Amino acid sequence: MSSIWGNKIKVSVFGESHGAAIGATIDGLPSGVSVDQEAVAFEMKRRAASSSRLATPRKEADEVEIVSGFFEGKTTGTPLTGIIRNGNTRSKDYARTKDLMRPGHADYSGWVRYSGFQDYRGGGHFSGRLTAPLVFAGAVAKAALAQVAPEVKIGSRILSIGSVWDKKDLKPGEYAALRYENPMFPLYTKMLEEAMKDEILDAIKDQDSVGGVIEGYVTGMPAGVGDPLFDSVESRLSALLFSVPAVKGVEFGLGFDITGLRGSVANDPFYIDGSRVKTTTNNNGGINGGITNGMPIVYRAAFKPTASIAQPQKTVNMATSEDAEIEIQGRHDPCIVLRACPVVEAVTALCMLDFLL
Amino acid sequence: MSSIWGNKIKVSVFGESHGAAIGATIDGLPSGVSVDQEAVAFEMKRRAASSSRLATPRKEADEVEIVSGFFEGKTTGTPLTGIIRNGNTRSKDYARTKDLMRPGHADYSGWVRYSGFQDYRGGGHFSGRLTAPLVFAGAVAKAALAQVAPEVKIGSRILSIGSVWDKKDLKPGEYAALRYENPMFPLYTKMLEEAMKDEILDAIKDQDSVGGVIEGYVTGMPAGVGDPLFDSVESRLSALLFSVPAVKGVEFGLGFDITGLRGSVANDPFYIDGSRVKTTTNNNGGINGGITNGMPIVYRAAFKPTASIAQPQKTVNMATSEDAEIEIQGRHDPCIVLRACPVVEAVTALCMLDFLL
Amino acid sequence: MSSIWGNKIKVSVFGESHGAAIGATIDGLPSGVSVDQEAVAFEMKRRAASSSRLATPRKEADEVEIVSGFFEGKTTGTPLTGIIRNGNTRSKDYARTKDLMRPGHADYSGWVRYSGFQDYRGGGHFSGRLTAPLVFAGAVAKAALAQVAPEVKIGSRILSIGSVWDKKDLKPGEYAALRYENPMFPLYTKMLEEAMKDEILDAIKDQDSVGGVIEGYVTGMPAGVGDPLFDSVESRLSALLFSVPAVKGVEFGLGFDITGLRGSVANDPFYIDGSRVKTTTNNNGGINGGITNGMPIVYRAAFKPTASIAQPQKTVNMATSEDAEIEIQGRHDPCIVLRACPVVEAVTALCMLDFLL
Amino acid sequence: MSSIWGNKIKVSVFGESHGAAIGATIDGLPSGVSVDQEAVAFEMKRRAASSSRLATPRKEADEVEIVSGFFEGKTTGTPLTGIIRNGNTRSKDYARTKDLMRPGHADYSGWVRYSGFQDYRGGGHFSGRLTAPLVFAGAVAKAALAQVAPEVKIGSRILSIGSVWDKKDLKPGEYAALRYENPMFPLYTKMLEEAMKDEILDAIKDQDSVGGVIEGYVTGMPAGVGDPLFDSVESRLSALLFSVPAVKGVEFGLGFDITGLRGSVANDPFYIDGSRVKTTTNNNGGINGGITNGMPIVYRAAFKPTASIAQPQKTVNMATSEDAEIEIQGRHDPCIVLRACPVVEAVTALCMLDFLL
Repeated sequence: MSSIWGNKIKVSVFGESHGAAIGATIDGLPSGVSVDQEAVAFEMKRRAASSSRLATPRKEADEVEIVSGFFEGKTTGTPLTGIIRNGNTRSKDYARTKDLMRPGHADYSGWVRYSGFQDYRGGGHFSGRLTAPLVFAGAVAKAALAQVAPEVKIGSRILSIGSVWDKKDLKPGEYAALRYENPMFPLYTKMLEEAMKDEILDAIKDQDSVGGVIEGYVTGMPAGVGDPLFDSVESRLSALLFSVPAVKGVEFGLGFDITGLRGSVANDPFYIDGSRVKTTTNNNGGINGGITNGMPIVYRAAFKPTASIAQPQKTVNMATSEDAEIEIQGRHDPCIVLRACPVVEAVTALCMLDFLL
Repeated sequence: MSSIWGNKIKVSVFGESHGAAIGATIDGLPSGVSVDQEAVAFEMKRRAASSSRLATPRKEADEVEIVSGFFEGKTTGTPLTGIIRNGNTRSKDYARTKDLMRPGHADYSGWVRYSGFQDYRGGGHFSGRLTAPLVFAGAVAKAALAQVAPEVKIGSRILSIGSVWDKKDLKPGEYAALRYENPMFPLYTKMLEEAMKDEILDAIKDQDSVGGVIEGYVTGMPAGVGDPLFDSVESRLSALLFSVPAVKGVEFGLGFDITGLRGSVANDPFYIDGSRVKTTTNNNGGINGGITNGMPIVYRAAFKPTASIAQPQKTVNMATSEDAEIEIQGRHDPCIVLRACPVVEAVTALCMLDFLL
Repeated sequence: MSSIWGNKIKVSVFGESHGAAIGATIDGLPSGVSVDQEAVAFEMKRRAASSSRLATPRKEADEVEIVSGFFEGKTTGTPLTGIIRNGNTRSKDYARTKDLMRPGHADYSGWVRYSGFQDYRGGGHFSGRLTAPLVFAGAVAKAALAQVAPEVKIGSRILSIGSVWDKKDLKPGEYAALRYENPMFPLYTKMLEEAMKDEILDAIKDQDSVGGVIEGYVTGMPAGVGDPLFDSVESRLSALLFSVPAVKGVEFGLGFDITGLRGSVANDPFYIDGSRVKTTTNNNGGINGGITNGMPIVYRAAFKPTASIAQPQKTVNMATSEDAEIEIQGRHDPCIVLRACPVVEAVTALCMLDFLL
Repeated sequence: MSSIWGNKIKVSVFGESHGAAIGATIDGLPSGVSVDQEAVAFEMKRRAASSSRLATPRKEADEVEIVSGFFEGKTTGTPLTGIIRNGNTRSKDYARTKDLMRPGHADYSGWVRYSGFQDYRGGGHFSGRLTAPLVFAGAVAKAALAQVAPEVKIGSRILSIGSVWDKKDLKPGEYAALRYENPMFPLYTKMLEEAMKDEILDAIKDQDSVGGVIEGYVTGMPAGVGDPLFDSVESRLSALLFSVPAVKGVEFGLGFDITGLRGSVANDPFYIDGSRVKTTTNNNGGINGGITNGMPIVYRAAFKPTASIAQPQKTVNMATSEDAEIEIQGRHDPCIVLRACPVVEAVTALCMLDFLL
């Protein structure tokens, strides 16, 4: 199993990069949720390849056809399925090199996992393209959240690209106030956009790629959500984040940096603010013992540099069992981070909805 | 729900720090697995509080009584339950301060989650004591792995305590060769032990605590294990690691550091080594696309400094809804990292067994 | 949740009777399974409405488009999704009577469950039409079984329609030998076909409907499959059978009749037949303690008469909260049993595959 | 897997008939539920062997020790575990015959399932003794229901023993009004008690056993509970009932008898009763399309005659692979039906609680 997630809702994702269609089914949604198709389209657009020189020239309309669970503009409560037809696929790009395992990709591990029967074209089910149905499902989850818990807001920002880092530890109140000038390139420090783009352009020049870090956050989350042990908010959200291709690290609050602090500094002191309990700092990222404490949930996901690069790379040929060299043609993003913010938000929305239903 | 995990096996953990007993049930084990009671006891001892001045003076025998699923020295294949009686509890330490929410603990979030009905003594079900049944379950899982996949070896080491760091990026081959002089304090660089202990002693002197990082690894894992998307090795292992109290970050391979590299450096080139496919580097930590590639699985978990410290701390009183101050008496570890290695290994063993059955 | 099933495989069914499409996703299939599209089409045809006067005149081509998980004629091992477009729907038949709850249907219980947001047309997600994706999924499961356990054979027969009953307790050996002259109307006693059809024609004449019993069986099942307690073969198969619309009873072996026997008669004595252990009788239907014993699995499902009948019926109007009368127009089967054999076999195939993987 | 059940709650049952202890863990309970220990004890007593000549002379105190999830008389919301120590076991009764497969029991199927490593004494994990933790869990579920849905009432009655049948199709209103003179032997028609006891005494005289049918019912259930397809009330409740040892058939409403009716008779007409929608008949047993319609849920479970009988029976010897004869000594119930009512109610309570949380 692999492609189904959830407790109160169940999200089932299907499809391959170059198959007929990709899509997602969400079971267990509340009935009567209005889903604004333009809001869905906006999320899909944030994820889709732009025509700019910073992203893959593959054009994906990514129009979602909702074929079930949606009636007269509202969810019925029965399984809602959205389908995205694949078009503009250049499968022949891949046939030539199907026995050459692309380094950093799932070609080899997937080949062993599926005994060579996997759809090798464009990474098949492992493709970053599978984040499109995730973003669709997340857009539906956002719509449901807007109805069942309207105070919950989900956001994200680019924290770093390559060696360029935006400001790290924002104050609790700053998350609720964040407004981005450019939602397609959400930064706390707007003027870093050029420096980050330069990192990418430099990589393109070298037929190379760069990685980065995305910070996600949830504000307005009530205290007392989550479970101890295996279904902690951290456990469930990290599992979703690590299911996003290219993520190699996840941390909450101060994350790895907290290990260098003393307890007297790391502990977030409680205080009474009117009728609410708050903490003066938020080093624990809004979660104590796996359960929300009412402060913003703050977390970061580390995205590795895009594995597909145009440079020649050393690899193996599975047909001949010999060492080989591969030059990946195709069309690829030099930096996946640009398109990953809506994906991070989508899995967050699914996770929060599942906890709050 | 909270305390049940697994696909092919199901591990159910129960108990509170100061209740009658804690324990675990493991369902779905293979039948006919010999479980060496001394090996179990050794793992329990690694986790238990030592009598040294570096750890809590609370003495826990942590003897496990296996009450089911075990017959004539072997697993039956039906649910195996181990029970650990709680003794040496000083519950009155907690009654005095039950309305004072300990900063950094789950007191407040748990109070909201369970409407005040949780067992507040010693953190109840949120207590680090719940790692004892996890370690027991992990010891059984290790025994099962020894039978179904004897080449799989699970290990861990202390990578940092406070500001003292051991060597980070070991070569793939070094993991298989690792032997620790002191399994109770496993270090790559033995002579760092004193410096790390000094970090802890300094913290004790200041009535404070320190955190640290543990690196876990699995060698001998076959390629092709795991699933794409939601049941990736990273997703499932990170979920388990984040279920361990005090973990605030998890990363695989180079983790967050990989975001600063170019793709041409981050990608692990494949090569043929005899009849096996290997990679020259292991920046992806043995996992591509969520599935093992046959290289060592390498990951790190960030443990925050122990939340319980003797210093006065600002907090709130839930009975009066007023700001308050708390001085935690009780008996507490100044650094949880010392006892966390067997816990990291235990959840890893459960995860790998679940994938390999 | 409602529409996802399985442990090792997960089947997710979606769609409404009069929506854009219905379909199913099967996750966790083995890779490399050949699926014969004609065999799939044959199963779909067995379930589909015939043009004969015995079944609904609604014509459903029920062509399945496989959009994922299938590559070069074989399963990839990633989620396989089949989609069936709905056509030939006469939704206006339903708009007139949407506030009138059809007796025997899920109109009222579904209305309460989904707060009036359900797709009321043709029963929506509750429609018998949802058995089409089940039959598709079952056909794929049969193909997988043919590869992983070729000795396992799944069959079914019409045991009764209305008051006409075929021979009940066949001998164990007879199940393996069963061959039907008419697979669209599978009977042990061929010459009962006319009498059964007369039952249906009589009902049609009276604008009424009839029910019946289907007997399913599995031969070639190895001993030792299943689990005690909650995942017994009986538990899991009965759950699937009760998920088929109109089923009101399920029994294994002698079923309810066994309650009238003495233990000395009901117990199936074991004996050695060459290298195999067999039982002389099969009163327990091939299952002891929830686990197969190697004899044919034999079970029966009771189908109530079709709820949709043309006669006027007493009911309530949800818009006015008043008593009312309803005359169901539309197009309906006078006897669902005729089309249910492939459905019973489909869920059986899914169940057995899930146990045997 | 086998011994864990539930969606919103998870019940994990463990233990063997002659091991150290049996028990159950219930995760996901609401916090703050008062559990009356006497009510628990009463349910345990209903299930336990009586000292009368009608049941096994094995005396089981069946005292439950709650070791977790229960604090100051109320549930904490974290996993609640109850443990029952096994005593009064005469394991040597079984050692002599461990290679002889008892007909009608899980000895052979379990032997294959667990490769001979199962605890053979008294049926091990397959023993009817495992219904004790089920009844305990059910008693806790009843307490939780009393708090979250106090109008829901769960009951059961003996419908038949051997060839003696009580009145079958009660009217909807009669279920809410049922009061039994003898809760240990609940009958609609009190004076049938002697005739039923005679059936059992006759069987005892012949060193034989008898079966019977239990009818369960739930009144006060709101409409709109349950799910279509796989998680229908019928699917989930039947799965639980078939997990009870000896159950070979389950039916809802009129069950198998409904197949002989016309739709015009079988359909339950709706009408308005004050502010509620009701049906004049209840042939569908309170469930339409898998979802409750507000009428009493009515269902029956067929229990086969006790498999353990003192007569010599033909069987096989697994050690020699030869035909053999077995005479079962031990202590056994001539009719399991007497003790099964609280078990039927227990799984019903768990099922309804899981739906209603």
